[in-house]
Amino acid sequence: MQLVIADKRYSSWSLRGWLAVQLAGEPCEEVMVRLYQPDTRARILAHSASGKVPLLKTEHGTVADSLAIAEYLAERHPALWPRDVAARAQARSACAQMHSGFMALRAAMPFDLRRDQALVPTPAEVLADIDRVVALWAECRASKASDGPWLFGELSLADAFFAPVAVRLRTYRVALPAEAAAYVDTLYQWPAFQAWQQAGLEET
Amino acid sequence: MQLVIADKRYSSWSLRGWLAVQLAGEPCEEVMVRLYQPDTRARILAHSASGKVPLLKTEHGTVADSLAIAEYLAERHPALWPRDVAARAQARSACAQMHSGFMALRAAMPFDLRRDQALVPTPAEVLADIDRVVALWAECRASKASDGPWLFGELSLADAFFAPVAVRLRTYRVALPAEAAAYVDTLYQWPAFQAWQQAGLEET
Repeated sequence: MQLVIADKRYSSWSLRGWLAVQLAGEPCEEVMVRLYQPDTRARILAHSASGKVPLLKTEHGTVADSLAIAEYLAERHPALWPRDVAARAQARSACAQMHSGFMALRAAMPFDLRRDQALVPTPAEVLADIDRVVALWAECRASKASDGPWLFGELSLADAFFAPVAVRLRTYRVALPAEAAAYVDTLYQWPAFQAWQQAGLEET
Repeated sequence: MQLVIADKRYSSWSLRGWLAVQLAGEPCEEVMVRLYQPDTRARILAHSASGKVPLLKTEHGTVADSLAIAEYLAERHPALWPRDVAARAQARSACAQMHSGFMALRAAMPFDLRRDQALVPTPAEVLADIDRVVALWAECRASKASDGPWLFGELSLADAFFAPVAVRLRTYRVALPAEAAAYVDTLYQWPAFQAWQQAGLEET
């Protein structure tokens, strides 16, 4: 397989697809298209008409979009979703809400691994998105089937989807309730995430 | 099961969830929350903290978001996605791109079953989204495994996801290439869609 991503410093959606591939554990070549270059769009279009990253090139064709990549990999590796059907439905709900929502948070707090500064003032609709993320994490963890530190106990695709949110909350120095702060710590200690973070911080 | 939706005239995401439920063919009660009322938000929140519709209440808890609803139902009814693994990956790519994208089209051409008027002028970014939808449909149909008139030959969740786009293209009188126009016709002849349309046109 081949995963097409953008800059690790800036591309939150690439991080989701990349973490999903790490979870699957299949050999996968990485192709990076740098953002904000004159030929960025043309280079992505050379890989896929979707015009966006991440893209996963597979023996079954090119899979565009992080959520479709996640489901493609989960078909081959069912343990990527929680085993329990109710937890799995809730995990998909959480990922789908992230995928289509939290627009205020995403627009006001762009993903940048090097950032380390609060957003002052933080707009009310961004605060509402943050409250909703914190509540959603608590809902997921209330239903978790095991004692693990991840959203559904064991590590799953849901954690891959919320890792970029953890980055925003930490790099914009958002004050969080204890349980949410602990979950952000958990994500920051995930070796796969740390590998991405290190590479992103070293990008020129 | 119980499906919580909003006005059939206006709610494109409700239509996707509702069509997915029709495809599954399971008994399902319908609960409508009217939009644009003083208590709309409170009434949706009484069903789920997501604050959005559609919501599917199941024996496994409440499933929020049309795409999570689709995957929940497809687990129980695998024929809701194309049978071929490559076609299924492409169908999920198409749905996920719809789920997170086409923002210009969605913002400039709000879903309204009663509309019957072109948008003049149509902004360039909306035209680009329309071109991309037409190209995406052609990609799906080029890979289809059967001769049926749907995106992947046989009726699937991908058709549920693009039905609201067909409504926009028709009600805003967008000129389309022949193959795309034929696909819009196909969606308009889908009995389940016609039932929704009829109910939406009759809403006060």
